[in-house]
Amino acid sequence: MSSTLARGTHAADKPFEALTIERREPGPKDVQIDIAYCGICHSDFHTARSEWAGTLYPCVPGHEIVGKVSAVGSDVKNFKVGDTVGVGCMVDSCKHCPACDEGLEQYCQNGFVGTYNGATKDAPGHTLGGYAQRIVVDQDFVLKVKHPEEQLAAVAPLLCAGITTYSPLRHWKVGPGQKVGVVGIGGLGHMGVKIAHAMGAHVVAFTTSDSKRQAALDLGADEVIVSRNPDEMKAHANSFDFILNTVAASHNLDAYTSLLKRDGTMVLVGVPEHPHPSPNIGVLIFGRRSIAGSLIGGIKETQEMLDFCAEHGIVADIEMVSADEIDNAYERMARSDVKYRFVIDNATMG
Amino acid sequence: MSSTLARGTHAADKPFEALTIERREPGPKDVQIDIAYCGICHSDFHTARSEWAGTLYPCVPGHEIVGKVSAVGSDVKNFKVGDTVGVGCMVDSCKHCPACDEGLEQYCQNGFVGTYNGATKDAPGHTLGGYAQRIVVDQDFVLKVKHPEEQLAAVAPLLCAGITTYSPLRHWKVGPGQKVGVVGIGGLGHMGVKIAHAMGAHVVAFTTSDSKRQAALDLGADEVIVSRNPDEMKAHANSFDFILNTVAASHNLDAYTSLLKRDGTMVLVGVPEHPHPSPNIGVLIFGRRSIAGSLIGGIKETQEMLDFCAEHGIVADIEMVSADEIDNAYERMARSDVKYRFVIDNATMG
Repeated sequence: MSSTLARGTHAADKPFEALTIERREPGPKDVQIDIAYCGICHSDFHTARSEWAGTLYPCVPGHEIVGKVSAVGSDVKNFKVGDTVGVGCMVDSCKHCPACDEGLEQYCQNGFVGTYNGATKDAPGHTLGGYAQRIVVDQDFVLKVKHPEEQLAAVAPLLCAGITTYSPLRHWKVGPGQKVGVVGIGGLGHMGVKIAHAMGAHVVAFTTSDSKRQAALDLGADEVIVSRNPDEMKAHANSFDFILNTVAASHNLDAYTSLLKRDGTMVLVGVPEHPHPSPNIGVLIFGRRSIAGSLIGGIKETQEMLDFCAEHGIVADIEMVSADEIDNAYERMARSDVKYRFVIDNATMG
Repeated sequence: MSSTLARGTHAADKPFEALTIERREPGPKDVQIDIAYCGICHSDFHTARSEWAGTLYPCVPGHEIVGKVSAVGSDVKNFKVGDTVGVGCMVDSCKHCPACDEGLEQYCQNGFVGTYNGATKDAPGHTLGGYAQRIVVDQDFVLKVKHPEEQLAAVAPLLCAGITTYSPLRHWKVGPGQKVGVVGIGGLGHMGVKIAHAMGAHVVAFTTSDSKRQAALDLGADEVIVSRNPDEMKAHANSFDFILNTVAASHNLDAYTSLLKRDGTMVLVGVPEHPHPSPNIGVLIFGRRSIAGSLIGGIKETQEMLDFCAEHGIVADIEMVSADEIDNAYERMARSDVKYRFVIDNATMG
């Protein structure tokens, strides 16, 4: 066991505070990582504040982790001390179900182990995430980062926001000649725009406000639609091959499904707290359209995504915060006041 | 113009009555058909009673038509007098949009012409369907029937119920090694069970009542699940490759989507009068599952379906009624008292 400094919270209504937590000694297959940066995901927020059921305290969130390998177990061949690596939403899975066999650990039939709030034999009985100076992770859940060193902080959000958008774009074969919509230009959506653009699609960003038009174009969108303008929406009816919908808040799905071409699919990546209005089934039937869901991505695909982003020079647009600014960052996230992702400088934990 | 006897209604609350309607003289590309039998579809019911907006009166429903060619236009090469043929839900489309070019006239971007209640230059300005002794149809919308003569009445429902279930089963590539569910064992569902079985899938019928178990097995289901039994449903969680949901009445979709495997799809073929409860998006996300819609099928695919059914000896299970029994048949359909499709003996029109 080794102690490491962290930031965590003891209850849904308590602020973050400095904690000293224990990490296991690296086993034969473990990689010990000194964390350089950790992105702040909306899931962190929901979990820390126990907005989803089942938060275990103390809660140390964080699953957009980048850093340097500081020790490896005796059986570890693919990583060595000093390597730049990342860890995303998962730190373990059963490794023997059909999903794991296919490299789709996110759909592990026995349940993957989340990077925080997951079941573990390590103290305190649930996993503690990346708001810490160090983490020890099974080698199978460690990713190689090939981006230039100076981009490292901005790579962190790729580990969740990046893969959550990359995976459905790849699975539904987005590419050149296709018109692809991205709904919600926040932490996830801004990555979706960048990645879909790099995949060669004609990318249309949907935003609720005219004031965000230029920002969406700057991210790589070919067009921007202000979704509150019905005429603008209507002009794009039946024209989209694929829509990636990153908005978790309850909203009218029909406004988007009706923009899909025949055989088009809208993929949702966020679970709404309150149900969306029930979708119009006629819109699906009269165009053989689909509404689907997608969850993060597998480890193999996450490595593919990181390599793709390194090759295309893609990172997140971030605002760096210190460890003492986490509560403030959460407050700003709650009012969508971030472009587009907060990343913690973990050097400020000490 | 030639006169033909029909059964139609003059208002939503009026009974069916004997009418004499006009059919156009066959043009160069037309096929004139003496109708032998016409199935009674739920759409007939909804249209005749104006439960959907826009019913034009007099209303002569019927789009599950089989009969004999009694005249052909000068340019008609593929049909000759005496041929046994069928007509389904469509009698025309634009023939030049991408959907029509792909043989998917049901998704015609300029709107296909329905066999009844569709726009036409013929009197009275809207199409009149198969509850009549004769119909004249563009050759491109006439299908060849290869079943034995004695099965002809039972072939009629293939033209709507058959293709509406065949098309999604084919599109989503149902076949051997797959576990396929069919929800709702009525006019559509009973065809779905027969066709999915003939495609080689392991077919599971969902029914609301234990009393229908044997009937579903008799149709070719390998297993039957009584959907009102939560334990029985739960035992099949995460096990279906595909579910064909033929129930148009509002119901809980999550009960079925949660039975899909990862990457499974549930296809809906009925538009509910009142919305379904909003589906649980988490169920989609945590298994990359899809909810899709599908509308009847194209003409090419309808011919393929008829040939497939002829080859596999598939017809509908029907109850024959005379022209004077249509109102009674509607009343019985309203209380689901039919196994599984009423078919009108059009010889009784006179």
